[in-house]
Amino acid sequence: MSGLDALGEFGLIKALTDGLPETSRLLCGPGDDCAVVQLGGGQVLLSCDAMVEGIHFGRDWMSPEDIGWKAGAAALSDIAAMGGVARCILVTLGCASDTDPVFLKGLYAGIAAVVSEYGVAVAGGDTVRTREGVFLDVAVVGEMEDGITPRHRSNARPGDIIAVTGCPGSAALGLHALEQGDITPATLIEAHTRPRPRLAEGAWLARESAAHAMIDISDGIASDLGHIAERSSVHIEIETAALPVSPEMRVYAKKTGRAVEAFALGGGEDYELVVTLAADEATALRERFVATFDLPFSFIGVAQPGAAGVFLDGKPVGRQGYDHFSTGK
Amino acid sequence: MSGLDALGEFGLIKALTDGLPETSRLLCGPGDDCAVVQLGGGQVLLSCDAMVEGIHFGRDWMSPEDIGWKAGAAALSDIAAMGGVARCILVTLGCASDTDPVFLKGLYAGIAAVVSEYGVAVAGGDTVRTREGVFLDVAVVGEMEDGITPRHRSNARPGDIIAVTGCPGSAALGLHALEQGDITPATLIEAHTRPRPRLAEGAWLARESAAHAMIDISDGIASDLGHIAERSSVHIEIETAALPVSPEMRVYAKKTGRAVEAFALGGGEDYELVVTLAADEATALRERFVATFDLPFSFIGVAQPGAAGVFLDGKPVGRQGYDHFSTGK
Repeated sequence: MSGLDALGEFGLIKALTDGLPETSRLLCGPGDDCAVVQLGGGQVLLSCDAMVEGIHFGRDWMSPEDIGWKAGAAALSDIAAMGGVARCILVTLGCASDTDPVFLKGLYAGIAAVVSEYGVAVAGGDTVRTREGVFLDVAVVGEMEDGITPRHRSNARPGDIIAVTGCPGSAALGLHALEQGDITPATLIEAHTRPRPRLAEGAWLARESAAHAMIDISDGIASDLGHIAERSSVHIEIETAALPVSPEMRVYAKKTGRAVEAFALGGGEDYELVVTLAADEATALRERFVATFDLPFSFIGVAQPGAAGVFLDGKPVGRQGYDHFSTGK
Repeated sequence: MSGLDALGEFGLIKALTDGLPETSRLLCGPGDDCAVVQLGGGQVLLSCDAMVEGIHFGRDWMSPEDIGWKAGAAALSDIAAMGGVARCILVTLGCASDTDPVFLKGLYAGIAAVVSEYGVAVAGGDTVRTREGVFLDVAVVGEMEDGITPRHRSNARPGDIIAVTGCPGSAALGLHALEQGDITPATLIEAHTRPRPRLAEGAWLARESAAHAMIDISDGIASDLGHIAERSSVHIEIETAALPVSPEMRVYAKKTGRAVEAFALGGGEDYELVVTLAADEATALRERFVATFDLPFSFIGVAQPGAAGVFLDGKPVGRQGYDHFSTGK
């Protein structure tokens, strides 16, 4: 076999998880934002998210508090993407022996900040030594509210309207600014350093029978919608003109020399939600959503019958998101 | 602050977890083998265990299947130490882009083998890129049988008999043999490469009201009993002559030039259980245990009132276990 670059993250996951044993308690296994397991008389949601120094974060442009916040937020967002309620996390810290304890205290302060903000407990974890660098792995446990079913990636139906919360691409622009040492686009930088898991919004949407499939944007709209298209076997059409773009995004994108839509479509780590909605109820649902949350909620496309795939203005969209192992776009 | 070496693993954990928020759902937080969380109408057990290449395992003397088995077994053992039933795991894999996919398939085959053996599901996980080397982090979820309470480290009472399953130290001797390239002590090597989490034994013990505190041996009897002594505020006396030593251990220890008891007392990663028992029921319980399981069950000491600590033949025992950050004994 060739290396992991050729296989890609999703190819690797498939190769690794094929043949793993399943049990009847496993209501939903690998391949969604969370696993769903029958436990203690209820449905428990489980997920984990790891971040590695030098790959997912650097100490140059993020404070340890930001790194800790972000690691926690990324994990909590997986619960949001199912429409669940986050209950607790486990934190695994790997670090070299010469790591500054002040840096580590900062990491945990950031984790404490995000879990406090969202009413989640740190239940435990592990600390291990590495040969170099720091990694954080956050496992998260949640549950569904009584009578509410998890919103799987596979739930989209032909005819659904595709909606997105917030303004994805903000985090990617914020990262670009940080890399340039430009601290002026504060809201974009905050989108990158202090992303907000959409837990209240996800749980609200899951109470709506018109909300079908849901996913959080960790790799970019194009890539993450691809998971919905594939698992729901729908053909998704999105329109460039419909992508939500904030004034801050538009202003800063000019400095990058790239189209703002490229960030909106391909930028990852916003942790906004994409949800597919029954077409006849979508507009009324949107009105109630924006009346409840101080957050944009935009219709960006439709799901149609046809071969699974994501199309932008009628053209197939390549994988423009972030694949952890592939080197190309 | 000085470096992590001075702080040590347990000092680090204390420094990091002080001040983390708690919630009423968290029945038992950091500091035991598992966290216990109120979820879905029941008590859910949670833990995680990470292994880093070059620190916890090497490719030189362990096959990828062994490494995967061991990572899974270490996590499952935390459920055993509470007396719980393991239900599922999440597997986070970190690896460099140039990692051989065949090696990774081997890792997952080992994980699949251990979870199949113990009736546990792989519910999900994460894959991330590292700059070099592989790490595995396994989060495990379990629950207590109806009406059975978790066996905490803090449950030991003065007067309790200290009992241990199997022959701890076997894994450390097996590792020594592997490092020497000596493959003759097969049972010792298997103790290191294919440790067996004592799930059935732990659940059986938890059904016995005479079984008070329990812990699994990951760092060595001396170190792990220290956690029971500290959290239960008891003075623990153990006797060298009472430590269970198998014939294979005795034979191979001679080749090492060290006393076999040093391995029995300080050797980690056996994942045997240490349990404290009500003295008046201990002997009858032991008879039933050995009639049920094909496994030694040895009385090695007693818990007494007095200052928390572990004493061997009347002398205080230093930390002879494995501390992930301390360099000295």
